[in-house]
Amino acid sequence: MKVAELGEFGLIQRLRARIGAETSTDLIVGIGDDCAVWRSGAEYILATTDALVEGVHFMRDAAAWEDVGWKAMAVNVSDIAAMGGEPLFALVTLGLPGNTEADDVDALYSGLLKCASEYDCALAGGDIVRANEFSITVGLTGKAQMRDGAPLLMRRDAAKVGDIIAVTGALGGSAAGLRRMREGITEGDQLVSMHVRPLPPLGVAQEAARLGVRCAIDVSDGLLQDLGHICTMSGVSADVRSADVPINEAVRSAYPDEALAMACAGGEDYEVVVVATSGVIQALCDLRQGQVTVIGRVTEGAAGQVRLLDPTGAVLQIPGMGWDHLRAREGAE
Amino acid sequence: MKVAELGEFGLIQRLRARIGAETSTDLIVGIGDDCAVWRSGAEYILATTDALVEGVHFMRDAAAWEDVGWKAMAVNVSDIAAMGGEPLFALVTLGLPGNTEADDVDALYSGLLKCASEYDCALAGGDIVRANEFSITVGLTGKAQMRDGAPLLMRRDAAKVGDIIAVTGALGGSAAGLRRMREGITEGDQLVSMHVRPLPPLGVAQEAARLGVRCAIDVSDGLLQDLGHICTMSGVSADVRSADVPINEAVRSAYPDEALAMACAGGEDYEVVVVATSGVIQALCDLRQGQVTVIGRVTEGAAGQVRLLDPTGAVLQIPGMGWDHLRAREGAE
Repeated sequence: MKVAELGEFGLIQRLRARIGAETSTDLIVGIGDDCAVWRSGAEYILATTDALVEGVHFMRDAAAWEDVGWKAMAVNVSDIAAMGGEPLFALVTLGLPGNTEADDVDALYSGLLKCASEYDCALAGGDIVRANEFSITVGLTGKAQMRDGAPLLMRRDAAKVGDIIAVTGALGGSAAGLRRMREGITEGDQLVSMHVRPLPPLGVAQEAARLGVRCAIDVSDGLLQDLGHICTMSGVSADVRSADVPINEAVRSAYPDEALAMACAGGEDYEVVVVATSGVIQALCDLRQGQVTVIGRVTEGAAGQVRLLDPTGAVLQIPGMGWDHLRAREGAE
Repeated sequence: MKVAELGEFGLIQRLRARIGAETSTDLIVGIGDDCAVWRSGAEYILATTDALVEGVHFMRDAAAWEDVGWKAMAVNVSDIAAMGGEPLFALVTLGLPGNTEADDVDALYSGLLKCASEYDCALAGGDIVRANEFSITVGLTGKAQMRDGAPLLMRRDAAKVGDIIAVTGALGGSAAGLRRMREGITEGDQLVSMHVRPLPPLGVAQEAARLGVRCAIDVSDGLLQDLGHICTMSGVSADVRSADVPINEAVRSAYPDEALAMACAGGEDYEVVVVATSGVIQALCDLRQGQVTVIGRVTEGAAGQVRLLDPTGAVLQIPGMGWDHLRAREGAE
């Protein structure tokens, strides 16, 4: 079977089964969450990695190199944010065709460094290899916030029936920005900026962990699909009220007919979905007014099922639910 | 300027200069050594990353997938060994063409897991992305051995004039194995096995650090070139006696005329060069008889210069000194 038929999540599940036996008593969170987490002395180390590939995640002619550098770092910061942690040091691996301009690599590093500076982390090393297609892989380590000797972690497998679901920020901007770029608009556009320079809500996410949130995921594949990962790993279902999903205002005015779909299934917004008791979510909403929106509730339906409900309670279908990195698609992201 | 003109080391130097300002008080060793090292509470975390790319580091038709997995892990273990540390957790990023067979990915993971098991470390996560060419990037973290609250680290910049230079194991096997593969021999050959399944001498390297060695590098680009990195970063020169370089016996009998060149410039042996006072090196040689060989001495010549001397003291020239990942070369590794 080809990996394109199996799909990204099918392949990950297959590999998890192989690796399952290989555990360590110090490994607190392994494959399948936003970060791996292990104990190191009195601290808890977080580590994540994400790669961007030319022609798949960006087109060389459309993407300014500095933006690619920013995004390569930001998507990893988003994983650390989704665990409630603090980003620290990054390793950067570049796959470079020999005809790459050194000035372009400089610009790429400008973007990496600006994003690292924004989130108070640092580049600590990496690897450069020759390749036929350009790629950048960032590995980012961090540490968990601690209280009374225990790590304050937000995992994917900790949702409980009755919990409230909320999300940071507003959604759909990245998908709308990608649409704009395909329409030929690349610069000075607010939506394009959301696609190429995501700003993960690290501070809000850390505050959520401190307030007692123990379950979260970042919005990378699409709100409903990412929430589905939480539901699968927690063995629960979720209901999301479409009227409560926070949609970016610029998306609503530019693409009124598709705004809800972009917000629910567009992906790459790099906001954070948090799941906790109503008391904890209320405390977070009070502290971060306007930055966190309640969108639904955890239910006891089939594990992994996410329903999007209109105001009458009817289930809505959204075309193109989410993103699978291995299945064939038209065009490039 | 194209990166192929600048070369790997030119590009790294250029990037180091950009990044120089971005430091952290917790970062003990940054870009330019085998691993990055930072303090985390009472412990010292090591991290390294290395990538293998299809068509550059291996040919899909020649390399069994399990071997590629083994090597991708082993080259990172080698970096941890070269710092004197203990490998712990790995993140694996795969760039996969959609038509990759899932069974081949299984075999790749078998190799990764076998090597991880050999060195008592574990897979903790990773990322899978679609790509046009296959690549695997392993990020490996570890920790430093400690004594009296201080980390026992072997760095590249700690060689001193008068120090003795030694190397673990015997050299040239990987280069000879690559030659064998190009001659069409791929299986059941001892030399091929050295190329595709390197065995970094983790235990010996850790013992070196415990005995007081504070300067080392692994043999990845080629003995003389890797020793050159130590000399450049330490501001010293080195003399290596050609008659003392330990050459693998199978290499000597298979390729007698090129055995010295393969041992000095072939690369990818993943042995470790250690540099320390004669007393420390002697203690290591006594404890690990037959596993460590003295090959030369640190001198006060021009920074970065490495001379290979024949028994009369004349300087030998070795063609094709070492490996630069970005400069154009014939064929693929």
